[in-house]
Amino acid sequence: MSMNLNTQAGIKAIQLEKLQAGIEELQSSNLFYKSRLHEVNSWNDFYDLPFLTKAELVEDQQRTQPFGTNLTYPLGDYVRLHQTSGSSGGRPLRWLDTGKSWLWWTGLWANHIYKGAGITSEDRIFFAFSFGPFVGFWSAYAGAERLGAMVIPGGSMGSEQRVLAIKELEPTVLCSTPTYALRLAEVGAQMGIDLSKSSIKKTLHAGEPGASIPSTKRAIETAFGASVYDHTGMTELGPTGFTCSAGDGVHFIESEFIFEVIPIGADPDPRSTQSEGTGELVVTNLGRFCSPLIRYRTGDLVELSRNPCSCGSLFVKAVGGIQGRVDDMFTVRGINLYPTQVEEVLMRYSEIVNFQIRHEKIRHMDEVSLLLETRDGTDKVVEKVVLDLRHSFGVRIDCKCVPSGTLPRNEMKAKRVVHVQS
Amino acid sequence: MSMNLNTQAGIKAIQLEKLQAGIEELQSSNLFYKSRLHEVNSWNDFYDLPFLTKAELVEDQQRTQPFGTNLTYPLGDYVRLHQTSGSSGGRPLRWLDTGKSWLWWTGLWANHIYKGAGITSEDRIFFAFSFGPFVGFWSAYAGAERLGAMVIPGGSMGSEQRVLAIKELEPTVLCSTPTYALRLAEVGAQMGIDLSKSSIKKTLHAGEPGASIPSTKRAIETAFGASVYDHTGMTELGPTGFTCSAGDGVHFIESEFIFEVIPIGADPDPRSTQSEGTGELVVTNLGRFCSPLIRYRTGDLVELSRNPCSCGSLFVKAVGGIQGRVDDMFTVRGINLYPTQVEEVLMRYSEIVNFQIRHEKIRHMDEVSLLLETRDGTDKVVEKVVLDLRHSFGVRIDCKCVPSGTLPRNEMKAKRVVHVQS
Repeated sequence: MSMNLNTQAGIKAIQLEKLQAGIEELQSSNLFYKSRLHEVNSWNDFYDLPFLTKAELVEDQQRTQPFGTNLTYPLGDYVRLHQTSGSSGGRPLRWLDTGKSWLWWTGLWANHIYKGAGITSEDRIFFAFSFGPFVGFWSAYAGAERLGAMVIPGGSMGSEQRVLAIKELEPTVLCSTPTYALRLAEVGAQMGIDLSKSSIKKTLHAGEPGASIPSTKRAIETAFGASVYDHTGMTELGPTGFTCSAGDGVHFIESEFIFEVIPIGADPDPRSTQSEGTGELVVTNLGRFCSPLIRYRTGDLVELSRNPCSCGSLFVKAVGGIQGRVDDMFTVRGINLYPTQVEEVLMRYSEIVNFQIRHEKIRHMDEVSLLLETRDGTDKVVEKVVLDLRHSFGVRIDCKCVPSGTLPRNEMKAKRVVHVQS
Repeated sequence: MSMNLNTQAGIKAIQLEKLQAGIEELQSSNLFYKSRLHEVNSWNDFYDLPFLTKAELVEDQQRTQPFGTNLTYPLGDYVRLHQTSGSSGGRPLRWLDTGKSWLWWTGLWANHIYKGAGITSEDRIFFAFSFGPFVGFWSAYAGAERLGAMVIPGGSMGSEQRVLAIKELEPTVLCSTPTYALRLAEVGAQMGIDLSKSSIKKTLHAGEPGASIPSTKRAIETAFGASVYDHTGMTELGPTGFTCSAGDGVHFIESEFIFEVIPIGADPDPRSTQSEGTGELVVTNLGRFCSPLIRYRTGDLVELSRNPCSCGSLFVKAVGGIQGRVDDMFTVRGINLYPTQVEEVLMRYSEIVNFQIRHEKIRHMDEVSLLLETRDGTDKVVEKVVLDLRHSFGVRIDCKCVPSGTLPRNEMKAKRVVHVQS
């Protein structure tokens, strides 16, 4: 295989070659794909393949318990079992990896995600999360092991213990969700420990769009006196993207995946996808044929750009990272908004430590309001925020302050939108 | 090096050879050992080396923060940072591993601990604990990865979720502390799920002596309908022993450590240690010269036997595993007892789900009583237990029942002895 990643044509050739080899294997031994796929000899053949949705995966795993039929090898060949966090709603998906596909995961971490952030074997990385069945945490950890950095597992600790561990063990990198990084800084402040003066030089995030939302990114940068890096990935797909030195989005790893976009909300023709522009991200996995996804509708909202990047990478860039989940769009008096857009406005205010979008149906009308948790517990900032939201989106959104510590916090993803039954 | 493990003399030759090579390295580059050690050319040279205590390690780490001076290589060569659980009292010890010493850890798991229990790459292992800084959990996990078994990380889950995960994901092996295995069975029963009918065929334990205490072992066997295996180890030392097919104790891995015993409580002469008999275990590490321990007084109470074992191993056996901590001995009206002896009597009663030893000074007199938590919340069993304790130890020990769910439970080590201030 000629691994020429220096031209777009070279990248496309590599993609097609990997795809062909993989699909041939699937057709012979993967029950889930046997009937869905045909031989692929050209890009036109590829565009004739059907989309795949999460609902189909869930249904398959419910029909064939416990792991479904998307298994290319005998069960004994699989060495890891992970589950989705379930945060996208519904039953968690279970996903199995072989030794080979796990090496592929950890290689993407070592060679793309950590490398993109300039993290090396000289770094000491603190992992501020528990190690449950969610794969993202494990792959970040295993990738750091592969990199040869010093790893410090922060599972089974409360936030105060983690602040102390950072102070005492002097890690150079913090790995966590963006929300939880801000939470740690908040706990540190309560303990009289200023984490902006800690040994942390870089923070690396996942699980939520935050680290690519400019104002949230700045808030983390300020809280830790550190450079902030995002990365993207899904249990079903693997690690898909990383922040480069340009810092304005996420490069998707086109040597290991094929990325396409389709218009939001439509029932689009698989033949008419785009390779750039705004829409729902569709991904094909080229490195995990033990349980692969071919043309998977991710539900993620992205803006793909092929403009040259200052970092020199030819990989397509998701401007501003994952901009939200397609299903998370909500409407305020006719204006369509995503939680990430609201977050971008709110996180400009250092007074605001947390927020929640409340969606309510009142007399068949959609009503949206915001709950804000402020650092000092007062509502001094509210008037300014309402004005700012109005300037940004052209509509008035009601805001209400709640006492400090009211909104739920955890080390996993923050729940930004709450649908209230009335 | 002639790796002849088929004779006692062969094992001793291997030990001496590894020790000589290691000590030479320490003398040139390990600050902690530089002044403590001399060249070792014979066993007599070895017996002239001083003992090392935990207090000395703690003091060294306090003097030179954060990792102390027992580092043979530059800090950049170390890739993992772990801490002791702190359950033996005092400040947790921090311990660093290099890539090479971590491979040594995981090799001992794959080639001795899992192998001793007949666990293979065909098994599916559920890890019922969170992955904090405590090394035992991580090494069990990494050893299973090395073995090629399927690993299911059960961190970040409550006990009910874990019971459901066992039911749905069908693991063949459960890895946990012995106390927590019994706790899971208890939670399962409350949920109407009988774990003795689950897919679990073997359970593997550490952290507490339980799995080598006959009545506790039987209780776990009954609760899971499974074979129960113990293993021993310490953060500072690594994994030291495993249960073999004979099932009546733990073989200490003499190809990787030197084991000695000294009398309890004395200030013994380093020249007069024994290679069998009852006393405090003293261990020298031969496979982790990045931060080794030479003639380390473990504080563990053992009975070492060199009688031939039915499993064929020549490695010395700790009869009944680790029988307790030397410091945990308590006295009831002149009779010396260890918590493990009390546990052996109490766990014969299926009515008892948990217990605690209360140690109180009343008018300068030591008073000991037991709190028992019974399955049905009643004290029907108490009279029988008091009689049984009296027959076993020749003294009356007061027992009191407490309501179901009163005594603390966690997934780590159970706190068996409570010293009450009065």
